[in-house]
Amino acid sequence: MATLIAFEDVSPTADAELLRKACHGWGTDEKTVISILGHRNAIQRKLIREAYHELYQEDLVKRLEHELSGDFERAVYRWNLEPADRDAVLANVALRKENRDHRVIIELSCTLSPEELFSVKRAYQCRYKRSLEEDIASHTSSDLRKASFCVILQLLVGLVSIHRYQGDEVNLKLANSESNILRNAIEEKAFNHEEILRIVTTRSKPQLMATLNRYKDEHGCTITKHLKDDSADEYTTTLRTIIRCMSDPIKYFEKVIRNAIKKDGTNEDALTRVIVTHAEKDLKEIMEQYYKRNSVSLDQAVAKETSGDYKRFLLTLLGKDN
Amino acid sequence: MATLIAFEDVSPTADAELLRKACHGWGTDEKTVISILGHRNAIQRKLIREAYHELYQEDLVKRLEHELSGDFERAVYRWNLEPADRDAVLANVALRKENRDHRVIIELSCTLSPEELFSVKRAYQCRYKRSLEEDIASHTSSDLRKASFCVILQLLVGLVSIHRYQGDEVNLKLANSESNILRNAIEEKAFNHEEILRIVTTRSKPQLMATLNRYKDEHGCTITKHLKDDSADEYTTTLRTIIRCMSDPIKYFEKVIRNAIKKDGTNEDALTRVIVTHAEKDLKEIMEQYYKRNSVSLDQAVAKETSGDYKRFLLTLLGKDN
Repeated sequence: MATLIAFEDVSPTADAELLRKACHGWGTDEKTVISILGHRNAIQRKLIREAYHELYQEDLVKRLEHELSGDFERAVYRWNLEPADRDAVLANVALRKENRDHRVIIELSCTLSPEELFSVKRAYQCRYKRSLEEDIASHTSSDLRKASFCVILQLLVGLVSIHRYQGDEVNLKLANSESNILRNAIEEKAFNHEEILRIVTTRSKPQLMATLNRYKDEHGCTITKHLKDDSADEYTTTLRTIIRCMSDPIKYFEKVIRNAIKKDGTNEDALTRVIVTHAEKDLKEIMEQYYKRNSVSLDQAVAKETSGDYKRFLLTLLGKDN
Repeated sequence: MATLIAFEDVSPTADAELLRKACHGWGTDEKTVISILGHRNAIQRKLIREAYHELYQEDLVKRLEHELSGDFERAVYRWNLEPADRDAVLANVALRKENRDHRVIIELSCTLSPEELFSVKRAYQCRYKRSLEEDIASHTSSDLRKASFCVILQLLVGLVSIHRYQGDEVNLKLANSESNILRNAIEEKAFNHEEILRIVTTRSKPQLMATLNRYKDEHGCTITKHLKDDSADEYTTTLRTIIRCMSDPIKYFEKVIRNAIKKDGTNEDALTRVIVTHAEKDLKEIMEQYYKRNSVSLDQAVAKETSGDYKRFLLTLLGKDN
């Protein structure tokens, strides 16, 4: 469930006018920006952008990007984009980092529907004039010095591009045989085995879950644990991230937020990403999981680790601005 | 351009009634079936199916499958399906053959738009309760004895799943450097090099064409020729098929038809596939290319090599039934 509290009976034109006033003249009225945009759903925000453009022949997203700054600006910018466009931006930012952050690619691939993922790819092409897949697959020659790098890229390209079967049917016999294939590959320490790649990228989620459950039943231990015990290189870390994100997205995103807050110095990028992309979907469940795991509520943790307008904006999206 | 001559001002209900009459009683009136369905476009055929179902609570596609037989039945069956559904059926038939025919997968991947391909994958899942990608990737253990088999499957899965960039922009510097990468891989006889796989599956068509042109300029020979000279295993054959189909689909399909007709015993499956899937798109260009290459018109060749209702139906789709 969403945490966003979207007000009803609001007028896009009135909102656009108030936002214009908030941006006009000396200094910006951040509180108004938060009180409006932090209480409008995706459709309402779209109507506001359209009304703003009609009234002032100006792009609201760019205007706010210009007026605001720092983590607050980045959060508002992401919040203002269409969901598919936002995901395209997040993916591109992650891929352009010096140390590429593949988590965003994994999150998109493992939690969006094929239709949503298709829209993200279309938005990516429209914005960057290249395909998402080719940007994931491209690399510098220095990357290739890392032995496992090519396999990681293959795994990620497969993950983001394959249109998984969406039905619920599970073939238990297949789950059994593929659980054995995985076990053999792990015992041979052939983590980058083509079969692992094939099973993880092509099987439907329910089928893959059945295979992983079978693995656990047979060997008394989850496959992620076995992957962790036996090796800790970048490839097995990527594989574990994929399995965790696909098996239980709520737990996965709780952990992303937990790490973002806990680590020395908050990771604002990760914190913003999870809150902005989930506030209209399942952030309530992620918050519940966070409380269960940390015995402190997420809004309290966020309030402690952030400050100023950025803090006010995140708390608003968490439904806790009063 | 299409070869199909679709009549205007026709009534789906009247068509459905005539088809019912043609199927009813002792023997089937194949001529009526051909004269109606061979002159209706995809939308008209859909309306006929709907009208038929409304009138007789029966599926026209199944009814005709039951009434007709042999190559004629298979051609009418494919013709009657929605394009995306038809492509899904063609892919499945090809994958289920004892000696898998990967050409259909290559044709779909290299000639459909991302949107069309997405619809085919959806239709495939709907019909077979599995994803197209997982059926391409799955194999028997005896397949794996062939050394190159895994790489072929990886190549095909990449091909069918990746959403290529659709824009026209070409980066000539990149074309130059990737042409060198391809040349190095071929010189080292590392045909299954990850880089070949990456370049062929992820780059946009115009970008890949620029790379292949650059290759030709630099080395005085096309890459397909180099691939053919140096090796003739299944993997390089697949790679050459992909490059030919993507570079010049019209020439490619002309050759499929030429081989289907020329070989000892006509390959009706291939002949039907190309005619049925292109009659509403670009079969006119394929026919022109056929005449240029063989100095005999395609309809004459088809008339010579086929017979009966099958022949009459194909000629109708070629726009030559009088």
